[in-house]
Amino acid sequence: MKKIINNAENFVEETVRGIVAAHGDKVELLNDDFRILIRKDNPKKDKVGIVTGGGSGHLPTFLGYVGEGMLDGCTIGNVFASPSSQKMFDMIKACDFGKGVLCLYGNYGGDKMNFNMACELAEFEDIKTENVLVKDDVASASFDKKDTRRGVAGMLYAYKIAGAAADEGYELEKVADITRRALENIKTIGVALSPCVVPEVGKPTFNIEENKIEIGMGIHGEKGIEVRDMMTANEIADLIFDKLNEELNLQENEEVSVMVNGLGATPLEELYIIYNRIHEILKKKNINIIKPHIGEFATSMEMAGLSITIFKLEEGTKQLLLKTAITPFYTNINK
Amino acid sequence: MKKIINNAENFVEETVRGIVAAHGDKVELLNDDFRILIRKDNPKKDKVGIVTGGGSGHLPTFLGYVGEGMLDGCTIGNVFASPSSQKMFDMIKACDFGKGVLCLYGNYGGDKMNFNMACELAEFEDIKTENVLVKDDVASASFDKKDTRRGVAGMLYAYKIAGAAADEGYELEKVADITRRALENIKTIGVALSPCVVPEVGKPTFNIEENKIEIGMGIHGEKGIEVRDMMTANEIADLIFDKLNEELNLQENEEVSVMVNGLGATPLEELYIIYNRIHEILKKKNINIIKPHIGEFATSMEMAGLSITIFKLEEGTKQLLLKTAITPFYTNINK
Repeated sequence: MKKIINNAENFVEETVRGIVAAHGDKVELLNDDFRILIRKDNPKKDKVGIVTGGGSGHLPTFLGYVGEGMLDGCTIGNVFASPSSQKMFDMIKACDFGKGVLCLYGNYGGDKMNFNMACELAEFEDIKTENVLVKDDVASASFDKKDTRRGVAGMLYAYKIAGAAADEGYELEKVADITRRALENIKTIGVALSPCVVPEVGKPTFNIEENKIEIGMGIHGEKGIEVRDMMTANEIADLIFDKLNEELNLQENEEVSVMVNGLGATPLEELYIIYNRIHEILKKKNINIIKPHIGEFATSMEMAGLSITIFKLEEGTKQLLLKTAITPFYTNINK
Repeated sequence: MKKIINNAENFVEETVRGIVAAHGDKVELLNDDFRILIRKDNPKKDKVGIVTGGGSGHLPTFLGYVGEGMLDGCTIGNVFASPSSQKMFDMIKACDFGKGVLCLYGNYGGDKMNFNMACELAEFEDIKTENVLVKDDVASASFDKKDTRRGVAGMLYAYKIAGAAADEGYELEKVADITRRALENIKTIGVALSPCVVPEVGKPTFNIEENKIEIGMGIHGEKGIEVRDMMTANEIADLIFDKLNEELNLQENEEVSVMVNGLGATPLEELYIIYNRIHEILKKKNINIIKPHIGEFATSMEMAGLSITIFKLEEGTKQLLLKTAITPFYTNINK
């Protein structure tokens, strides 16, 4: 597998340079290490700051969602590696506008440890913080162990809800509560068809046989639930829907948002074929879809495959989902 | 290579069903054959209609650009195959709002023949039409044979300019002239790293060796200029820029828009690494970039590779490029 890069060591820095060169009207670097991005129109007003962090290699996650109605700051590490607690702390400081900072990120060991340390440092400077962890990957652990589940594409919905809640002027605890509550209704499962290549490694770190599909694989290639013979699009959609619905237990007349997320190499046509099936299933059940998201939102570089996220909406979360958000990689306007 | 489909025969119909299911607030089918998409908010006012057509397999091209400020209608054929002249005629009729219809499409034999027949049918019904062909692929023929060049990702810019010009209320001839003039300054070259799979064929129709890159390959796998050993990102950007600039001859203080377009499987990170280099080159030359486009705009399903388009702006085209456009797959707002 070939990569269009200069050298593995500069992969992250050159990506970030490109993002700032292209979107310098909306975002800027906090300092010259190319690892912390903040909003250019830094609100600096009386609102809760929303920040995230995680490994590189998942664009548009994470950097792509810094902007109006979403994140105030984002720090990234090397590919699939956590950023340091110092960078997290620098970011938190830059994104405290007097009402504290919500740290919203995926449930991974390194990110969790580093955010906890960063929040301790923030406490010394009298900056209030709350941590909300995204654990939407239903395939990564059983329901009784759901606190150990990983965070995947559902993170986008969490950013959207938290960003909109912060814009409402709510206090930190309320923004955190709303986001946690929303996350209880955000569930994802992914399938992978082919591996990705970490630039520093230079070759695939795992393998999926030519006629196989791995159900439940994580966005870093974490082992899934099972490897099956390749399935049709409808079989994949049906399987994932059933597993998600075991936990969501969707009822007639409820409303959901649906995300069909490409992991990197899967054509947009195929994502729409999957969406078509999910739409059919939900229509039959008389469940209404609001603001579907189809495209690449959380990738694993050149991995082939996709994930489906269902977000069961309540009155409050629906309004927050529909509020305007404009970032370099995501536009949500009601038009 | 695995595809997430149900069966090859239904690939296009199920994709289109998915698009209409997801974006039914913005677009609708003209009839029940799933091949013609028109704006839901059909302007029906005194403006030139803008339509296009071509083979499937290039999403977001073509269907994705039907919407406000871009296309009024689009008809597609099977994967990499032209739609019929009858469908083109039906679309032209539906998109005539009293000022005639601009047919704007890539310079491919089948599309050209069918659009010519469709326009003859339209003439019988007193619908005025103009044809503007996109021939931006510099690699597909030498300058002295530029009328035979293929249309690739630069098509997006042509849709944007034509859609904005039509919204200004200009007459058909003027919209066509503005678009033709813009196209003289829109130049593209692509590189491919791996093949794509036409669903009906089921296996790659060509091959690129593991350590090779094909310079100038077309978006259906048409042969490029040369096959080279794999290059670095900067070497690729430099090579393409030099070839484009041989024709554009960019001068200090001129303004351009730049598109780095992923062909399907190439990670967004790599597109930004390429953009970073193009930005460096242009900055050194004191050339200003307006509205860069980085992402997937014209794909070849799961082909790995990218194309770079440079659009040299003049005062008029710059204003049209910056006007608002909102379609299911493309949002251009000045915010």
